Amino acid sequence: MSRIGDNQVLVKVIELTEAADPRLADYVRLRDVNLRKSLESVHGLFLAEGEKVIRRALRAGYAPRSLLLTERRRDALADLEGEVDAPLYVLPEPVARSLVGFDLHRGVLGSFHRKPLPAVADVLAGARRVVVLEDIVDHTNVGAIFRSAAGLGVDAVVMAPRCADPLYRRSVKVSMGAVFTLPYTRLDDWFGGLETLRALDFRLLALTPGPDSVTLGAALSGTGPTDRIALMLGTEGDGLSARWSELADTRVRIPMAGRDIDSLNVTAAAAIACHELLRTAHPAN
Amino acid sequence: MSRIGDNQVLVKVIELTEAADPRLADYVRLRDVNLRKSLESVHGLFLAEGEKVIRRALRAGYAPRSLLLTERRRDALADLEGEVDAPLYVLPEPVARSLVGFDLHRGVLGSFHRKPLPAVADVLAGARRVVVLEDIVDHTNVGAIFRSAAGLGVDAVVMAPRCADPLYRRSVKVSMGAVFTLPYTRLDDWFGGLETLRALDFRLLALTPGPDSVTLGAALSGTGPTDRIALMLGTEGDGLSARWSELADTRVRIPMAGRDIDSLNVTAAAAIACHELLRTAHPAN
Ligand SMILES: C[S@@+](CC[C@H](N)C(=O)[O-])C[C@H]1O[C@@H](n2cnc3c(N)ncnc32)[C@H](O)[C@@H]1O
Ligand SMILES: C[S@@+](CC[C@H](N)C(=O)[O-])C[C@H]1O[C@@H](n2cnc3c(N)ncnc32)[C@H](O)[C@@H]1O
Repeated sequence: MSRIGDNQVLVKVIELTEAADPRLADYVRLRDVNLRKSLESVHGLFLAEGEKVIRRALRAGYAPRSLLLTERRRDALADLEGEVDAPLYVLPEPVARSLVGFDLHRGVLGSFHRKPLPAVADVLAGARRVVVLEDIVDHTNVGAIFRSAAGLGVDAVVMAPRCADPLYRRSVKVSMGAVFTLPYTRLDDWFGGLETLRALDFRLLALTPGPDSVTLGAALSGTGPTDRIALMLGTEGDGLSARWSELADTRVRIPMAGRDIDSLNVTAAAAIACHELLRTAHPAN
Repeated sequence: MSRIGDNQVLVKVIELTEAADPRLADYVRLRDVNLRKSLESVHGLFLAEGEKVIRRALRAGYAPRSLLLTERRRDALADLEGEVDAPLYVLPEPVARSLVGFDLHRGVLGSFHRKPLPAVADVLAGARRVVVLEDIVDHTNVGAIFRSAAGLGVDAVVMAPRCADPLYRRSVKVSMGAVFTLPYTRLDDWFGGLETLRALDFRLLALTPGPDSVTLGAALSGTGPTDRIALMLGTEGDGLSARWSELADTRVRIPMAGRDIDSLNVTAAAAIACHELLRTAHPAN
């Protein structure tokens, strides 16, 4: 790596041929969820997959630790040489396969430093429409909710302490990189954390398929585009905890119409609720 | 198996100890997508996982080829003994693991006969609100769309010839069994098949995030609960084909609000569209 001029950094492409090379440690065994979780949290890193998503992470200001390309895709990020302060490793396909544990169809991976999570008050400062996730377990669901929220005009996401990680590889991928652009943070107090939202004048709507609730449409009717609304979504199995349901201002349901199905998938509920919120802000739609 | 009385069938529980036992052939290597696809289509079978989903398949009239339980869960379907005309195999956990290729957390699997797909006209006979899927690739997406459609009052699903299989294990699971209760079929002609819907007076709405379209709300305003509406959804990567877009009566979009995300996941789009359709039918919501 050699510097040219004052702040431009030239990164040499480095060809590697051994999956066991210690410089590739960030990328080992991507399928092993438990190994990955501890590796990623110990080193404060996350992985992004595919050219488009990696470029989004870079644009959002995440600093790469390294980038990894298979030989077939060696030129995918060629334009970044000299712009990115990180090594760019190129691997033969079979070496990449034995490193990560499967065929890397997109041929491009990046390992990035996490950033410290912002304070709840900072994330909410300019926000009017927010999504609050209690203990969503599935990374696909977390990613899908971020994609819908970002695409439907939500300003921020706030998560309970135990909600699944939005920067886990699967969440990042499913979100199409929305986890980089949509501001989010975590409450550090599950029991009392919602008070922060209430103190900032957010109306807390607990989304629940149960009968003891008003319809989403009724709950939103009369709210204007400047009202602060928080949509609370619960875990896949049991839904919102009793504590969080009680702290809400209103329990709201998305009306359903039978056939033996008694709740929606949490990502479907999130999409519908974000859409309704956007419609309330722009009634012409 | 011994018959008691006239039409009651008593099924003996059969304990097996070898993963290679030919009676277990329906259940081999569930993770191997290609192997499974050919096995399942050659034998006209599909698999259902988990007690709840299996009971739904039985209630919906699917005939089981066999049921499989791990020892820990051997009593999960005990009440079905004598009701179901199929063997009920019980396996030690490690044998089940080596058979299917992973830990069977729910401990209950069933192999069922497929039924012939009904004619398009039969599926549509009493239907007013239908979802039409072009070439959805991902089984998770197909299952999620069925769950939302069934939960939000859609009457039937019609699929293009190449749309992913709703009875593939992953689709079944994600749908929570909605693939058994919501009537569906496949067009056998991609090019001209939509004409059947038009001939039955369905209004074809092509869902597309593109700009050359009207909003979903505008397209539905003025339609009454007795109008016949078909919501057409396109493939994950490229969306609806040019052919299908042209055949539609109207191209409709779900309004989005930026942050660098230019389309919704097809399951999110489906959920929102089905919700809007139900709201149109019951404006009070
Ligand atoms: C699969 S559901 C949980 C179902 C759980 N049995 C319950 O009663 O809450 C996961 C989450 O999706 C949301 N959800 C699902 N269907 C909903 C509906 N019809 N109305 C409002 N929220 C819904 C809720 O936030 C719920 O916590
Ligand atoms: C991921 S999108 C495909 C995106 C593709 N680039 C396109 O322009 O259609 C998959 C499907 O979801 C539906 N979809 C996604 N976002 C939508 C929106 N904002 N309005 C209407 N339909 C949408 C469409 O049916 C689309 O074919």
